[in-house]
Amino acid sequence: MIDIRTRDVFAAMRPDLLLVQSRLEEAVRIDYPGVSDLVLGLVRAGGKRLRPLILLLAGRAYGDDRDRLVTAGAGVELLHTASLVHDDTVDRAGMRRGRPTLNSVLPSGAVILLGDFLFAQSAMLAAATNSPRVVSIFASTLADICDGQLREMFVAHRLDQSREEYERRIFGKTASLFAGSAEMGAIIGNAPEAAAQALRQYGSDVGMAFQIVDDVLDLREDANQLGKPAGHDLLQGTVTLPTIIYASGLTQGSEAATRLEAVVSGEMDDLAEVDKVVEEIRGSGALETAMDEAIRFTTRSKTHVAVTPDPEIRDLLEQVADVVCERSA
Amino acid sequence: MIDIRTRDVFAAMRPDLLLVQSRLEEAVRIDYPGVSDLVLGLVRAGGKRLRPLILLLAGRAYGDDRDRLVTAGAGVELLHTASLVHDDTVDRAGMRRGRPTLNSVLPSGAVILLGDFLFAQSAMLAAATNSPRVVSIFASTLADICDGQLREMFVAHRLDQSREEYERRIFGKTASLFAGSAEMGAIIGNAPEAAAQALRQYGSDVGMAFQIVDDVLDLREDANQLGKPAGHDLLQGTVTLPTIIYASGLTQGSEAATRLEAVVSGEMDDLAEVDKVVEEIRGSGALETAMDEAIRFTTRSKTHVAVTPDPEIRDLLEQVADVVCERSA
Repeated sequence: MIDIRTRDVFAAMRPDLLLVQSRLEEAVRIDYPGVSDLVLGLVRAGGKRLRPLILLLAGRAYGDDRDRLVTAGAGVELLHTASLVHDDTVDRAGMRRGRPTLNSVLPSGAVILLGDFLFAQSAMLAAATNSPRVVSIFASTLADICDGQLREMFVAHRLDQSREEYERRIFGKTASLFAGSAEMGAIIGNAPEAAAQALRQYGSDVGMAFQIVDDVLDLREDANQLGKPAGHDLLQGTVTLPTIIYASGLTQGSEAATRLEAVVSGEMDDLAEVDKVVEEIRGSGALETAMDEAIRFTTRSKTHVAVTPDPEIRDLLEQVADVVCERSA
Repeated sequence: MIDIRTRDVFAAMRPDLLLVQSRLEEAVRIDYPGVSDLVLGLVRAGGKRLRPLILLLAGRAYGDDRDRLVTAGAGVELLHTASLVHDDTVDRAGMRRGRPTLNSVLPSGAVILLGDFLFAQSAMLAAATNSPRVVSIFASTLADICDGQLREMFVAHRLDQSREEYERRIFGKTASLFAGSAEMGAIIGNAPEAAAQALRQYGSDVGMAFQIVDDVLDLREDANQLGKPAGHDLLQGTVTLPTIIYASGLTQGSEAATRLEAVVSGEMDDLAEVDKVVEEIRGSGALETAMDEAIRFTTRSKTHVAVTPDPEIRDLLEQVADVVCERSA
């Protein structure tokens, strides 16, 4: 049944998503042999295209300006890609979507400049919509993403983080682009201001759910399913919702608390100890509690799409929200 | 006499440049202790503000929309700063304007994200002009800068470079932002299209001269005057105009040609050999021939400002072109 719902929205939007894909591939054409194929490979390996999907649907809810929606859709996907390229370089990640990252095959200087090149191309796509409002949302979203990533870096290795700090951080890092995508689509589709803000809220909630699910999967799946090692966040010192929930149930000074502290602080990088902490988090019920939180965001996201006049678009937007949680099913 | 001309344009534009400076400082406010001061220091250490100066003057040539000109002026200066932050990381440069670079005091991951943050803030300033045309010039300028930097990286360590390749590269890396600054100013000032394009050409020529002078200074000055080691470009394998001119006068297989090839290719990194090549370039007259080329660009830049109706602004734009060459006086 999950499969059918998933298939619906992707089938319905397939023609538009194909246009987004070809706009994307045009935008990253680059005439340095070797590098060109790597960048194209990166853009083709992309996952479900949830951000352009949300943008396209939000645009279709009120108007239909297909060409500008496709352009902006390619812009948000490329902004996401550029941000992943730098993020993987910062994290020294070796794998992404089961493929070697750019930073694992090119010198770091080249990857920094290629990431900048992708940012530039995404900004050109946003500018090509010719809408000052879209460009302004695009720029402030980029600022939010950087803020989230910097926050993540500066609070790394610290266990004394509140849920509010976590939410602020993942809003910037992830949900801001889902929110911005929905809002940009609504603006291009000439939605009334209140509807644009409701759709922005929808995107924000879907994005929050998406990142929480990602954080749960990082602890729940094995390396094969993830295309990267499990417990990667813990190893990086990144404290996510399941870890915050798990830590709040521990007795200070207990063996488990001491082990968690040692792993998060980076004092202990023995992979067997990291695995033990992952096992303990799994056994504590924290993953299920975190998933409940993701579902809460998903449920709330659907209340915001009630403003949408077209019942078919409303249904498709709800499906996207479900897809985000179904990644973990 | 040089000093008086210089003083004129900076004195005339001082009130506007002070507004640009405070807009800049607002834009980089960031609430991570420690980092905030580093970024502010970087923005305060900035040199002559030539890019905002050109933008402001081009804007004043036809109209006067001070607030938007100041905003865009801060945007181009911040784009320049962001690009330097990443460039210094790519080059592993230790000093810039006599101060330690961000990458010499922070982990490279933090510097990548801080550079992205500065790009985001510069894009927000461009978006705040509310002009789709300005944003579009801004985005394509960023793309040109990345293209120039990538080109520089991919042809590094190769001596078989034509003057045309060099010019294309420095247009992207440097002149594109001078050109874009002039054009953005003209657009905000409501200049007629032909005048906007003439001012863009002016900016491009000034930028070409600026980079050639920079490349000459890298070989001519000592470390103290530059705030970085002399012959830095050669050590990086970056082939600049003086080196192209010098190489074209060498007999293939001669001792000097072999030494140059070894240094540029990176096979030889003995600093005494690099110094010898620097001395040989200095003795060959190549620096003077390159400076003649810079002066040719400066002279041509002045022909483009002939369209400007206001003789005072025309004079100030000509002074800026002169300042670029006077850096070497």
